[in-house]
Amino acid sequence: MKFKLKFCIIQFPFIIFLIYVGFFINVYNGHVDCECNLPRQLIKEIQSYSPIVNKIINATIAGKFKGKTWKELALFVDTFGPRFTGSRTLEVSIDYMLNRSKNYNLENVHGETVKVPHWVRGQESATVLKPRKINLAMLGLGYSVGTPKKGITAEAVVVNSFDDLKKLKNEIPGKIVIYNEKFVSYSETVEYRSRGASEAAKLGAVAVLIRSVTPFSLYTPHTGMMSYEANVTKIPAACITIEDATLLHRMFQRGKRIVVNLKMQARTLPVTQSRNVVAEIKGSAQPNKVVVVSGHIDSWDVGQGAMDDGGGAFASWASVVLLRLLNLRAKRTIRAILWTAEEMGTVGARQYIEAHKAEVRDLQFVMESDIGTFTPIGLEFTGTEKVKCILEQVMGLLSALNATQLRSPNAGPDISDWVDSGVPGGSLWNKNDKYFWFHHTNADTMLVEDPTSLDLATALFAAVSYVLADISVDLPHHTNELPEP
Amino acid sequence: MKFKLKFCIIQFPFIIFLIYVGFFINVYNGHVDCECNLPRQLIKEIQSYSPIVNKIINATIAGKFKGKTWKELALFVDTFGPRFTGSRTLEVSIDYMLNRSKNYNLENVHGETVKVPHWVRGQESATVLKPRKINLAMLGLGYSVGTPKKGITAEAVVVNSFDDLKKLKNEIPGKIVIYNEKFVSYSETVEYRSRGASEAAKLGAVAVLIRSVTPFSLYTPHTGMMSYEANVTKIPAACITIEDATLLHRMFQRGKRIVVNLKMQARTLPVTQSRNVVAEIKGSAQPNKVVVVSGHIDSWDVGQGAMDDGGGAFASWASVVLLRLLNLRAKRTIRAILWTAEEMGTVGARQYIEAHKAEVRDLQFVMESDIGTFTPIGLEFTGTEKVKCILEQVMGLLSALNATQLRSPNAGPDISDWVDSGVPGGSLWNKNDKYFWFHHTNADTMLVEDPTSLDLATALFAAVSYVLADISVDLPHHTNELPEP
Repeated sequence: MKFKLKFCIIQFPFIIFLIYVGFFINVYNGHVDCECNLPRQLIKEIQSYSPIVNKIINATIAGKFKGKTWKELALFVDTFGPRFTGSRTLEVSIDYMLNRSKNYNLENVHGETVKVPHWVRGQESATVLKPRKINLAMLGLGYSVGTPKKGITAEAVVVNSFDDLKKLKNEIPGKIVIYNEKFVSYSETVEYRSRGASEAAKLGAVAVLIRSVTPFSLYTPHTGMMSYEANVTKIPAACITIEDATLLHRMFQRGKRIVVNLKMQARTLPVTQSRNVVAEIKGSAQPNKVVVVSGHIDSWDVGQGAMDDGGGAFASWASVVLLRLLNLRAKRTIRAILWTAEEMGTVGARQYIEAHKAEVRDLQFVMESDIGTFTPIGLEFTGTEKVKCILEQVMGLLSALNATQLRSPNAGPDISDWVDSGVPGGSLWNKNDKYFWFHHTNADTMLVEDPTSLDLATALFAAVSYVLADISVDLPHHTNELPEP
Repeated sequence: MKFKLKFCIIQFPFIIFLIYVGFFINVYNGHVDCECNLPRQLIKEIQSYSPIVNKIINATIAGKFKGKTWKELALFVDTFGPRFTGSRTLEVSIDYMLNRSKNYNLENVHGETVKVPHWVRGQESATVLKPRKINLAMLGLGYSVGTPKKGITAEAVVVNSFDDLKKLKNEIPGKIVIYNEKFVSYSETVEYRSRGASEAAKLGAVAVLIRSVTPFSLYTPHTGMMSYEANVTKIPAACITIEDATLLHRMFQRGKRIVVNLKMQARTLPVTQSRNVVAEIKGSAQPNKVVVVSGHIDSWDVGQGAMDDGGGAFASWASVVLLRLLNLRAKRTIRAILWTAEEMGTVGARQYIEAHKAEVRDLQFVMESDIGTFTPIGLEFTGTEKVKCILEQVMGLLSALNATQLRSPNAGPDISDWVDSGVPGGSLWNKNDKYFWFHHTNADTMLVEDPTSLDLATALFAAVSYVLADISVDLPHHTNELPEP
C-alpha cells in the first residue's frame, strides 16, 4: 500500500508528462483538434486508410486515370452541348450516362423518373428605340411569361435598388423597369433576378430588365430562374448586361426619355418527365447504408453546361468509376447521382429525396459539387461536431492533393433537403472566385474546366467516399444538433 | 607664371572633387543620366516648369477638371455609340467634337477632309450543322467579301497553325478552314486574322473562321481588319470565339465530320469622305512649330468605342481643353487631332501626314494614345538620345501622377508615319494588361474606362505638351539616327 502510493507519487507527474508529450505530438501531426475527443482507435483506423487513399490519389494525379475526368466531360459536353430541362437532348444525354455507367461496370445503374417543368425560351430580343437604337444583349429568365408577338414597347425607368423603385413609384405604371443593381454577392444580388418582376408589377410596371448577377462582364448576359409572387400580375422578365444597365442608367440620370421594345416568345409547356441517373458500387457488408456523391446533369439552355454542372457531375461520377476500376469495394454502398432539372429549382433532387425518405437514416454522408471545379481546397460541410472531427481525420489523408480544409456550412443546392433534415453533407470547396463570371452564360464552356483541377476533385471525392463508406462507425445525423452557420 | 602653375596644381584636384560632388548630387536628384549631357541651363529651365505642371496636375486630380475627361467621354459615347468609318454617326460625332472644341474656345478648329473606305457588315451568321447544330458567336472581318445569299455550306478543317494548314493541304480544297491558333501576343497572333484568308484560299479553301485574337474570352468574338493578297481568290473571313474554335478543334481531332454554314452580307461601297478633327492653342511666339496630341475618333461597328479609342482620343483632346481653361499658352502651337478611319488602316492619319508633309520639320513632338487609358505608367517613345534625355527631365516633373517612366519604341499606329520619318513621338504607356480582352468587341464600353485613370492621362498629356511646346530648344528629329527598338 505504502509502496503503491509512493509509486503513484513518483509515477503521476511522469504520466502527465507523457500525456502532454503525446498530445503535442498528435497536435503536431494534425490528429487532435482541441474540440475533438475521438477514440484513439478510430483515429488509428482512419489513418490505416492511408495506403488506399494514396493509391486513389496516385491513379488520378500520375496514373491511368490522370486527365480522365476532363476527357470524359469534354466528350460528353462536346457531344450534347446544353441540356435544358424538358429538352430531348437532356434525355439523350441521360441515356448516354446510363450506358457509360454500365460500360464501366457500375452497379444498380438506372434512371429514376421525376416530373419536370417545361419552360421554353423561344425567340427573344430587347431593343432600345430612344434616345438611339441599341440592340441589347439579353436573356429571358426561367419561368418568365412571354410578350405579345409584337413585343411590349414602353418607356423605361432605371433604378439602382428596390428603394429607388419605391421612391419612383408614381412613375412606374405602364413602364418597363430596368434594375441596375450593383453586384454585392450572389446570394444578396440574386434577389433582383428572383423577385424583381413581382416588385415592379405591384407598382404597375409592364416588364422588367435586370442587370445580370455577376461581378464581371464582357458584355455577357446571365440567365437564371425567377419566380412570381402569388396574386401579382406576371410580367415578362429578362436580364441584360452590366454594360447596358449602366449605360441606360446614365441616360436616365441625364433626363433622357428611354423607350424599349421587348419581345419574348417564352412559354411554359405541360409538365414532362426526366430522370435522375443512379449508379453504384454496392457495399460488401452493409449495402443498404449509403454514401452519396453527386452533381446535376441538366444545364441552362445557353452555353455548354461544362462548369454548371458538367464539372461537378463528372468529378462525382468519375470518382465512383475510379473506385470501380481500382476494384475498391467499401463495406457500405457508394452511390453516384446525377440530378436532373436542378436549374429549374432542384426539381430532380427534391423528388428523389421525397421518394427515398424512408431510407434517410441509412445515409452515411451525402456530397455534391455545384459551385465550380476549380482548384480544390477541401470540403464545405454541415454536420455534428463528431462528424467534423472524423472528417478532419479523413481530410488529413489528402495532403498530397493540397485540399485538406473544412469549413461550414455546406452550400450544395441539390443535397440541401437532406442536409436540412439532418444528414451530414459536404460540397467541394474550390478556388471559384471567377465562378460567377461564367455562371448561366454562353461562356459556360469547356474552356473553364481544367484537367488537373478535375483530377484533384475526382480524387478527393473518391477518397472521402471510400473511407466514409468503409469505416466502422456510422456518422451521426444532426436532427437536433445543427451547428451555427 | 610660377605662381599660376602652383595655383593650378593646388586647385586642380579640388575642382575635380567639386565636379564629382556635383555629379553625384545631380545623379541623386535624378538630373543626370549617365548617357545624358544636357546643358545644366536646360535642366534648370525644364525644372522651372514645375509650378505650371503642378497647377495642371492639381486641376485634374483635385480641382475643377477632376472627372471631366470621363464625363465628356461618357456623354459622347453614350450619345453616339459606335462610330464606324463611312457611317453617318461618325460624321455627326465629328460635328459634335468640332462644336465642343469651339465651345471650349480652342483655336483653328476645323475638320480636314479625307477619303475613306466604306465597308459594311450587314447581316451575318455562322452555324455548325454537323455533328450538331451550334449557332456560333461570330463577327465578319473588316474588308472581307460576303457570301452568296444562302451562304457557303462546306465541310470544315480545323488547324492550329499555318504549319498545320500546309500539312493538310490536300484536304483544303472546297473546305472552310477554321484557325484555332493559340494567343501568343497580339502582334504575333494577329497574323492569322490579317492573312489567314489568303493563306487558306491559296490551297483552295472557300472561307475561313479565325479564332479571336485575345488571351481571354467570355464567349467574345473580336473583329478587326484583314487584307487580301494580290492575285489570290478573295474568300469570306470571320472571327469566332476561343470557346468555339477549341470545341471544333476537339471535334475535328476525334474524326467528326464538321459541316458549317457561313452567311455574310459584307460588302464594300464606293469610297466616301470623313474628317480629321483639328483643334489648337496657337503658339505665342512660334505658332508654326507644333506639338501634336492625338487619338482616333472612329471605332469599330461593335461595342461603343469607349476604350478604342474613346479614352485615348478624349485624354488627348481634354488635355488641350484643360490648358485652354487654365489659360496656358505655350510658345509653340499645341494641336489636338482626332483621327478618322484608324480602324480601317490608319486612313485619316496617313492622308493628313501626306498632306502636311511640307510642315514636318516644324513638328516638335507628336503624341497619341491608342492602347488603352488604364492607369498611366509614362510614355512609350521613339527619338534621339537627346530627346530621351529631355523627356526624362520632363517626365521627372510628373511624380505626383506616379507616371514618370519612359520606354522605347513608340507604339502608336496613327503617328507611326511621322515617327518613321524622323519626328520624335510618344504614346501613353499604361497598365493595359487586359486591353485585348475588350479590343474590337461588344465589351468595349464605358465600363472599361476609369475616371481617375483618365484624369491622370489627361494631366500627363497636358503637362508634356505644354513643357515641350514652351521650352527654348527645338527637339531634333532622328532621320539618320533611329535608336534600336
